[in-house]
Amino acid sequence: MLPSELIERKRDGHELTREELGFLLSGFQAGDVADYQISAFLMAVYFRGLSAAELSALTGAMIDSGRRLDFSGGETPAVDKHSTGGVGDKVSLVLAPLLAEFGLRVPMMSGRGLGHTGGTLDKLDAIPGFRTQIDLTEFEAILAEVGCAMIGQTPDVAPLDGRLYALRDVTATVQSIPLIASSIISKKVAEGTEALVLDVKYGSGAFMPDYEDALELAQILVTLAAAEGLKASALLTAMEQPLGVTVGNALEVRESIDTLRGGGPADLREVTLALCAEAAVLSGLADESTARARLEEILDSGAALERFAKLIERQGGDPGVVEDADRLPSAPVREPWLASHGGFVGAIDARQVGLAAIELGAGRARIEDVVDPAVGFEIECAIGDSVETGQRLATIHAASESAAEAAADRLRRAIALVPDPPPEAPPLVRCRIEPGG
Amino acid sequence: MLPSELIERKRDGHELTREELGFLLSGFQAGDVADYQISAFLMAVYFRGLSAAELSALTGAMIDSGRRLDFSGGETPAVDKHSTGGVGDKVSLVLAPLLAEFGLRVPMMSGRGLGHTGGTLDKLDAIPGFRTQIDLTEFEAILAEVGCAMIGQTPDVAPLDGRLYALRDVTATVQSIPLIASSIISKKVAEGTEALVLDVKYGSGAFMPDYEDALELAQILVTLAAAEGLKASALLTAMEQPLGVTVGNALEVRESIDTLRGGGPADLREVTLALCAEAAVLSGLADESTARARLEEILDSGAALERFAKLIERQGGDPGVVEDADRLPSAPVREPWLASHGGFVGAIDARQVGLAAIELGAGRARIEDVVDPAVGFEIECAIGDSVETGQRLATIHAASESAAEAAADRLRRAIALVPDPPPEAPPLVRCRIEPGG
Repeated sequence: MLPSELIERKRDGHELTREELGFLLSGFQAGDVADYQISAFLMAVYFRGLSAAELSALTGAMIDSGRRLDFSGGETPAVDKHSTGGVGDKVSLVLAPLLAEFGLRVPMMSGRGLGHTGGTLDKLDAIPGFRTQIDLTEFEAILAEVGCAMIGQTPDVAPLDGRLYALRDVTATVQSIPLIASSIISKKVAEGTEALVLDVKYGSGAFMPDYEDALELAQILVTLAAAEGLKASALLTAMEQPLGVTVGNALEVRESIDTLRGGGPADLREVTLALCAEAAVLSGLADESTARARLEEILDSGAALERFAKLIERQGGDPGVVEDADRLPSAPVREPWLASHGGFVGAIDARQVGLAAIELGAGRARIEDVVDPAVGFEIECAIGDSVETGQRLATIHAASESAAEAAADRLRRAIALVPDPPPEAPPLVRCRIEPGG
Repeated sequence: MLPSELIERKRDGHELTREELGFLLSGFQAGDVADYQISAFLMAVYFRGLSAAELSALTGAMIDSGRRLDFSGGETPAVDKHSTGGVGDKVSLVLAPLLAEFGLRVPMMSGRGLGHTGGTLDKLDAIPGFRTQIDLTEFEAILAEVGCAMIGQTPDVAPLDGRLYALRDVTATVQSIPLIASSIISKKVAEGTEALVLDVKYGSGAFMPDYEDALELAQILVTLAAAEGLKASALLTAMEQPLGVTVGNALEVRESIDTLRGGGPADLREVTLALCAEAAVLSGLADESTARARLEEILDSGAALERFAKLIERQGGDPGVVEDADRLPSAPVREPWLASHGGFVGAIDARQVGLAAIELGAGRARIEDVVDPAVGFEIECAIGDSVETGQRLATIHAASESAAEAAADRLRRAIALVPDPPPEAPPLVRCRIEPGG
């Protein structure tokens, strides 16, 4: 078998066998198949796709490339959530303690942000002292004590996925539905959760902006998870505008704390409740409406926030931030961003807000970029609002005046002021893909 | 500019500017853009093609990557021929001395064979003592003395093409019309010929088996050459069965000598005459029928063979081979290959014969393989021949009995015996693309 012959077959739209894919991938791991061959193969996959059998073979190879954890068999079901990524998406910070309080175990492994979307690890890093690089023994201990634990992905789990992702990131082969699906599901299967709720986002700020593409991805994810023995369901949620009103790591922690206290913006609360109810249903603990009522109770009682404080403390962070958010990092410059003219807020383009956040230093254009936890935006208007000239629409939290100015300019591309009221927004949760697809 | 963004734009079917392509390619040469990025880019080009402007930019970058020779301004026009490669294609060995005798200068730079097709350099290497690794000063001197000179491509000329080709060869990105076209034309422009005749082959043994694909390639080659200031025309010639009756390097030299003496197989003589007449017309020396009559005279007089002997001697080879072909390497084993049953010869599949030749050691499966000059096939039947059981259809020249047996088995896939006479073959030269396209 020659790697170039297998690349050629995929290029020409033929199906590769499990053995052939295994030859390419194990050769890649061993250094016998070159990265320039795998990147050409990935580009061919981008154009030709993968059959269900190929997708399963690829996913299996990634699972088998490392350690496989197992959180099944506990007193309560272990559940995890994965979002395809959005702007202002801080759901994990609310969901993990909320579900723990509800009675599930949440062993959560998260990633960092790249491009215009943020990452849960970066948000957790904004909490002074919080440790996310924790070994698996301690991870299990925290999970047993707190009911949830939040750490970074370990290189022991699906290392092949990590290597492939690094290559995809620099060769324009990230945006391929089967490659995305196998990356997500291989990690989640290897991480050993018993059930998985997927938040598949669509809209300008999503990784997959087109709704039909996102729907296809959601269906493939749920089907692939089932094929690999992992019970999963998906919600398709809107990401046209940022979720919640803050973008930027410390600001988002603050907003998560508000939401865990029963407050916070309605859209963030709604998406979090929908995903948590889905997790409860998937784990067989309650029906949707019972779960939802109980979840709302927990949020409003403040019990979820207490659980979060416990988690922060157990992972080395300062639990005082939940009572005094000023203990979080804050930016030296706060600049209001004003309406240049009157009208209605027609759009708050999530992608543009995300790109503006990168410009501020709140996100990463490249993997090696360093994130400033303090900077970001507070959006102080909503789509459909009637605004007057000079009205404050956002506050920019920046490291310097010049950074604030550059971000302000970028923000002009994001927040559109229009003469007529825009049409009503579609529902936040647009579709549910049941377990099995 | 990020390489991944440019790859993404090409992947999505957008046109890159000359500057953007230059950034990618000069970055590749400098080591700033990784080979795994270029291979993904090449695969995207495979699927998306290149616009005329992109093709010109790529070709220009390859020309500018090395030294640019100039054979213009001599007393007689300098002309070169390029074939897209076939099985048994020894035209260059006949054409170069024939055109020199006709009154043109032929500074010919050739490559080695790879895969099922042969290479001119390998054939020349079968002549004892013949040197093809000659510096450019001596190359010019030989050209001035003999009227033709035949050497290997130098790494000084279009080195970027060499690096890209090496990458394409192992990433299944060879078979892309714009990449093939830019590779051929960049080399020929940089090699400084004044006119170029292209032999674009189609049929099972060709690099581009499909006639329509070959036609498209021919048109792009001629148009691109004109855009780069090189006068070129193309003939589309059939490569369903091997050209001539021998395949294998020393055997092909012997057949070339026969043809230069006015003998040789009709198809080899016909294709060579057509290409030579085209070169004469392109160089403005004669019209087609005058050129052809004179070329036939030269062949039949033996003058072209004398010129070949002079070339061999000047390049360090044994000129005695033209009178005594037994001075060429010969294989220890000669095995007849017999008809297993009676019928008509329905096909002599050039690709399968080429693959059988690799199995004998006459060709290369990989660049690093060593070629045995002595081995190969003599085909002793023609398509349409009525044959009887046990009749000899070919002779296998092999290094050992076992190699002969393996090749015999392969030959069974090539030579088809059918119950009814096959339809008449299409003409050898099917189409001509005039200068300018």
